[in-house]
Amino acid sequence: MPVSEPLSTHEIQAAAARIAGVAVHTPLLRCDALDTATGGRIFLKPECLQVTGSFKFRGAYNRLAAMAPGAREAGVVAFSSGNHAQGVARAARLLGMPCAIVMPSDAPPLKIERTRADGAEIILYDRLREDRAKIAAGIAAARGATVVPSFDDRHVAAGQGTAGLEAAADLARLGLVADVALICCGGGGLASGFAVGSGIRTITVEPDGYDDVAISLARGEIVPVKNPGPTRCDALQTLRMGDLTFATLHALGVQGVSVSEAEVARAMAFAFVELKLVVEPGGAVALAAALTGRVDLAGRTAVVMLSGGNVEPAVLAACLAEAG
Amino acid sequence: MPVSEPLSTHEIQAAAARIAGVAVHTPLLRCDALDTATGGRIFLKPECLQVTGSFKFRGAYNRLAAMAPGAREAGVVAFSSGNHAQGVARAARLLGMPCAIVMPSDAPPLKIERTRADGAEIILYDRLREDRAKIAAGIAAARGATVVPSFDDRHVAAGQGTAGLEAAADLARLGLVADVALICCGGGGLASGFAVGSGIRTITVEPDGYDDVAISLARGEIVPVKNPGPTRCDALQTLRMGDLTFATLHALGVQGVSVSEAEVARAMAFAFVELKLVVEPGGAVALAAALTGRVDLAGRTAVVMLSGGNVEPAVLAACLAEAG
Repeated sequence: MPVSEPLSTHEIQAAAARIAGVAVHTPLLRCDALDTATGGRIFLKPECLQVTGSFKFRGAYNRLAAMAPGAREAGVVAFSSGNHAQGVARAARLLGMPCAIVMPSDAPPLKIERTRADGAEIILYDRLREDRAKIAAGIAAARGATVVPSFDDRHVAAGQGTAGLEAAADLARLGLVADVALICCGGGGLASGFAVGSGIRTITVEPDGYDDVAISLARGEIVPVKNPGPTRCDALQTLRMGDLTFATLHALGVQGVSVSEAEVARAMAFAFVELKLVVEPGGAVALAAALTGRVDLAGRTAVVMLSGGNVEPAVLAACLAEAG
Repeated sequence: MPVSEPLSTHEIQAAAARIAGVAVHTPLLRCDALDTATGGRIFLKPECLQVTGSFKFRGAYNRLAAMAPGAREAGVVAFSSGNHAQGVARAARLLGMPCAIVMPSDAPPLKIERTRADGAEIILYDRLREDRAKIAAGIAAARGATVVPSFDDRHVAAGQGTAGLEAAADLARLGLVADVALICCGGGGLASGFAVGSGIRTITVEPDGYDDVAISLARGEIVPVKNPGPTRCDALQTLRMGDLTFATLHALGVQGVSVSEAEVARAMAFAFVELKLVVEPGGAVALAAALTGRVDLAGRTAVVMLSGGNVEPAVLAACLAEAG
């Protein structure tokens, strides 16, 4: 049985009030070529246009803004080599809070640089010999700082879910209700928040081999994946979903699918050519599920998440070349 | 003296009613790095996210939707190798009208293919030996079809100006009024429409050597440019602005600046890395004027237009490499 209470719409509405005017209300975009390819009526939610280039900022800002004044002064600690790090660092800067980010010493220099540019203290660790969670916990204990998890946290997931609130409200203004939403999924924070915030039937999309959320939801218990091969979806390499995200998604009967590396590359190329959007590999999995028909969208109204755009130009170029 | 009446807000409001629900209401995007670089409060208007990847669709749809039933049946003809062709072809398809596009036989195969994919009849001509305007006029005469100009037409410019109406309305919802708008400029249709539709003081931005609009506005008469060198801004290679666009921009006291090829490449790279947007060379000139300080935005609230995103991956890759 889940040990966590599922996320509530109330929590997401409170998050929406906190992030209003700070996070971007990302638009819903239409694409004729995508409607033709799927046979559906597709609305894309481009979180690559969000502050720091991914939905992670929504959750990070909500988490930090909800902290009590005393805790704020002691600051926050997070461990991440990517989008969560940038989201937390930016939120901390905007709120005037000290911020330390534990990053692997072999993280992409650009990501280290961008996180540092937001004023975060960067603590590098050896990925093979050290435990980043322990390092973060040690820093937090020494400073009285708060560790900010990347998905298994009520405020983080609720903040991420504001994307769902926005999508449902924008559709309602058009007189529409979506039949289904395809959501990029690592640990399930965005999917949990989106499902609750939007009220839309949600399907998680993961990279092949990293589909612990799909497997866990199908089996009715949290099942980690083991020894998956490499993936270009660096943002979605989670091996085990969290208690909160399991409790929330399981209660809603959410199911999941997965897509291949080649399908991700083709989705990134589609986003580039047809949408004029730079989408990172992990941000393109939901679009891949739509384009391949992994989820049949014919005759349906669907929201498809593009969750982030933080990709090195060389990686995107390689994906464009691979997709032909 | 101008032979045309300046564009009116009434014409742009009528255009907004025609394109509502068909064109994308593109959002205003913020970018912390851009505010830092300029010292201003910058709102980007990403028309690369518009239907067919550029603002041209707004004007084309408004022009075609305003035609009388009898004229609609006879269809439209346009000559263009790029964004206007795609905008007209898509508008014609949506309105169920026959459409012929006169394109140079050496146009990029992708652009020919995308225009044809929208159901347009493609008429290829020899750029060195034939006159595309005469070919289009001949087709129009034979079929009773209507030629759709790319900028010097009231309905086209008014439709393009709906981008300005949207920007001003979105700013008003935030309780803001912009001090200035930087608008990418070829023949001046978008700049004319934007200036009138938004009521914001507008500055046109052209590629160096193609700054006929800036020169004409400074001299108070239409002055064509001659024999400019090559430019990567294929969308902005206009050598002479139109009577309507001159009349409109001159009456408002609009002025213009220009940017170099290298500055355009750096702006495209900035859009890619910081904004996650694919912006074509001609679509990046206004951003280049902001980033270089060609227009000083320190302490000002500004709208910066990103007018299109139809760029070949190889061209973008070359610009990213050049920008370092």
